[in-house]
Amino acid sequence: MGKPVLLFACEGVDTDAWAAALRLAAPDVELRLWPDGGDSAEVMFGLAWGNPPGFWRTFPNLRAIFSLGAGVDALLADVTLPDVPIVRMVDPSLADGMVEFVVMRTLHHHRLVHLYEQQQSTATWRPVRPPLTGRRTVGIMGLGELGGRCALALAGLGFQVRGWSRSPRTLEGVETFHGADGLEAFADGCEVLVCVLPLTPSTEGVLNGRLFERLAHGACLIQVGRGAHLVEADLIAALHSGRIAAATLDVFRTEPLPPEHPFWRHPAIRVIPHAAAFTYPETAAVVVAANLRRLLRGEPVADVVDLSAGY
Amino acid sequence: MGKPVLLFACEGVDTDAWAAALRLAAPDVELRLWPDGGDSAEVMFGLAWGNPPGFWRTFPNLRAIFSLGAGVDALLADVTLPDVPIVRMVDPSLADGMVEFVVMRTLHHHRLVHLYEQQQSTATWRPVRPPLTGRRTVGIMGLGELGGRCALALAGLGFQVRGWSRSPRTLEGVETFHGADGLEAFADGCEVLVCVLPLTPSTEGVLNGRLFERLAHGACLIQVGRGAHLVEADLIAALHSGRIAAATLDVFRTEPLPPEHPFWRHPAIRVIPHAAAFTYPETAAVVVAANLRRLLRGEPVADVVDLSAGY
Repeated sequence: MGKPVLLFACEGVDTDAWAAALRLAAPDVELRLWPDGGDSAEVMFGLAWGNPPGFWRTFPNLRAIFSLGAGVDALLADVTLPDVPIVRMVDPSLADGMVEFVVMRTLHHHRLVHLYEQQQSTATWRPVRPPLTGRRTVGIMGLGELGGRCALALAGLGFQVRGWSRSPRTLEGVETFHGADGLEAFADGCEVLVCVLPLTPSTEGVLNGRLFERLAHGACLIQVGRGAHLVEADLIAALHSGRIAAATLDVFRTEPLPPEHPFWRHPAIRVIPHAAAFTYPETAAVVVAANLRRLLRGEPVADVVDLSAGY
Repeated sequence: MGKPVLLFACEGVDTDAWAAALRLAAPDVELRLWPDGGDSAEVMFGLAWGNPPGFWRTFPNLRAIFSLGAGVDALLADVTLPDVPIVRMVDPSLADGMVEFVVMRTLHHHRLVHLYEQQQSTATWRPVRPPLTGRRTVGIMGLGELGGRCALALAGLGFQVRGWSRSPRTLEGVETFHGADGLEAFADGCEVLVCVLPLTPSTEGVLNGRLFERLAHGACLIQVGRGAHLVEADLIAALHSGRIAAATLDVFRTEPLPPEHPFWRHPAIRVIPHAAAFTYPETAAVVVAANLRRLLRGEPVADVVDLSAGY
């Protein structure tokens, strides 16, 4: 009997680096690289990213699909997806990168560098002493694998950290809120708001004017969730009124962000080209290989997507 | 006998906040606020910042001078300074602020946000995956109270950290170099260079073209030492050649930086108005009060400036 077949079918990534890392981490599997997939009936596992709708239903003996990225909303949007476990990517380097990015931009806004950027454009020298971190309230929306680690890292730096999630969560040193009923109390007076939510029907448009009204005047927004969380016109209005002083946006409703989009030219918006966190083949392949072995042995696999929750 | 007299004579700071914090932390001292200093012969201790040369020699019974900031170069430049101990400010909040700032800007450059800032100016969407921190070399010049903590914090984030200081130092997880002879080996291939040095005759102009030539091509500079460490024309040349890709400058030869200075308009330079770290009266006054009590009891005082070294 041959080795189980893993089909790598990911768009827009460094296939060579992934192939090398997967061969090293999973020598007990036969790796095939799309479009050289061979007999589709032999494919047992798929590694997915950016596939067209209907792609995965053409493999009749598929036993599981691994997502190359942490967000599975695009994959789940394929209504023809076969009824097999979908395994989320929990690359430790991806989580490290997200924590790095959120910590960096929280400090950036806390230390008022967005203000100094604007002052520099008019050669204005005006230092402003920020409050100590212990007097600065940061709110994290989303307390899963990524958001939870961000919240703990910021609490470790001394910030007053609040967290909001769909269902109740407990995190050391973090004041937690949950559900639609807890959202306003969570946001009340936040000076930095960080969105690390997954995109689901209930979180679409959650970053809107009503939420922004609860924030401290002059708050900052760090958006590393998904583009559809944000009501774009409401952000522009909140920046205009001064409710929000500056925003770091890493995700957009249309990516790449079209050249004519007003976000590019807004002086209080920093556009990051979806670069808050990356998956690294050398660390991610090890996680994929471990989950593959568990599936082959019939053991339970962590990181399987809960289809009823949508993430 | 009255209480010992502490004269607060600091320019450009929030005197009310300082007075409140000092009265709370040192109730056993009589606090006077310049220019209401009373009889100058009664002044036993001074808290100094921004005083004109010759100011402190007018107090015949002075027993020690406390600097309000971490840098004492301006104070020591006064050749008429009385021969009393000069006590450096080691405010824990100042050190925390410096570590915050250096970590934030190291992550900023590591994660290529300077590149995304430049791309935003032309509405260019081009994400670039950075190496993992473990493959990024950061060099810290200055391993004293502030630089040492910055080095340890960056090592804790996984960076390959090197440190350089005047005399030999050992720091857990940091590869250390020292002296003029060690400078080139230290700088060789550094991708982020951080200057946290004190200003002395031997460190003036240390950030120059010869040093920059040792860095990795496309390195970034974070300058939070003193303005005179940097040869300004050499930085402009290194940015032009691409040897240095971007610089964060918090200190300048002339402060405030004059409006006509080319740094303001350079797209690869972020000008910070000497705001990397601030002294906070509520935490600093506690340290000053503790040192005052030690001096009154005739005990040794930490943080006294070594006049032979100049810091």
